[in-house]
Amino acid sequence: MADRNEILGAAQGAFNADPAASMAAVAEAAGISRATLHRHFDSREALLVELGTRSLDQWAGRLDEVDAEALAASGDAPAIRAALETLVLGYVDDADGFGFALTDHVILANADLEERTQVLADREAVLFAAAQRVGVLRPDLPPRWFGHAIYGLLVSGREAVRIGDVARRDVGRLVLSSLLTGIAQPQNQDSTP
Amino acid sequence: MADRNEILGAAQGAFNADPAASMAAVAEAAGISRATLHRHFDSREALLVELGTRSLDQWAGRLDEVDAEALAASGDAPAIRAALETLVLGYVDDADGFGFALTDHVILANADLEERTQVLADREAVLFAAAQRVGVLRPDLPPRWFGHAIYGLLVSGREAVRIGDVARRDVGRLVLSSLLTGIAQPQNQDSTP
Repeated sequence: MADRNEILGAAQGAFNADPAASMAAVAEAAGISRATLHRHFDSREALLVELGTRSLDQWAGRLDEVDAEALAASGDAPAIRAALETLVLGYVDDADGFGFALTDHVILANADLEERTQVLADREAVLFAAAQRVGVLRPDLPPRWFGHAIYGLLVSGREAVRIGDVARRDVGRLVLSSLLTGIAQPQNQDSTP
Repeated sequence: MADRNEILGAAQGAFNADPAASMAAVAEAAGISRATLHRHFDSREALLVELGTRSLDQWAGRLDEVDAEALAASGDAPAIRAALETLVLGYVDDADGFGFALTDHVILANADLEERTQVLADREAVLFAAAQRVGVLRPDLPPRWFGHAIYGLLVSGREAVRIGDVARRDVGRLVLSSLLTGIAQPQNQDSTP
């Protein structure tokens, strides 16, 4: 008998492999009947919303781990820089499990999840604004942009791994390095071959 | 009587507003009956695949406009740098119309569209590799990564505009600047306030 956690884990795997996976496909992946699946989750939407909630729990956990609010108040530039790196690498790890949720239209359209997303984005924005004040992040970008840039590069990383263009072990470094320093060769280096 | 082009335009608007829009919602947006819509498109999938095809036509058109292959062969660093900026700003403009297609699961799962996406990604990768050789793009990143990074930041830009965090007129500059130089304050500048 699969318990709720096992079903959610199997569903997560099924949606990562095929974001359009049906309830029948999820039941098969979990090794249970459709009737059993429906006893746990009324609908595909209910299942997706619970997975979306868990992905937000994980995001909140990452912000708790670095103690985002205390760190923002500290004004400690090296600590803020290190925490941003820790956060982004943590998000890349989480996206390996919850990647489909980044772009799932049911999850993105859910009002409760969107509200909670905004609360977490606000927590992050406080840290980003502090990072700007102490010279860790560029002062010319809007503080609300940083979270979107991170989000987009998580989608990049997940897609690059899915297509097979990038190895899973390399994706954290690629995302972090592209995010922080960009993909252009710095112009102050003489790089013409 | 709406023609096929008008219906596709209305459908694009409907899917951008709500990626889960039903055929009934698309028909309503186009000001036609569901029966008329179904005469043009057998299924929601057929409609999405045609919109996906058009978004790839636009992508191909951008690569043609900068003459990507000739440019890659030229080894002309300033021209390659300028073309990369033109391409990215063009993609941001296109994503304003076709943004939903970036993450639509029906479009992403379609084998024909995926095959054509790979052909276009290959054309781009030739330009990126040339840009690395002439010192425009970082030599330490895999050439196949650049396209993914651009893709992700297009998703960032679209989401930031959708949420209302960034004005439409600013998004091209934000995407391009974050892509090329990153979001971190360069460490060789004294930026501590």
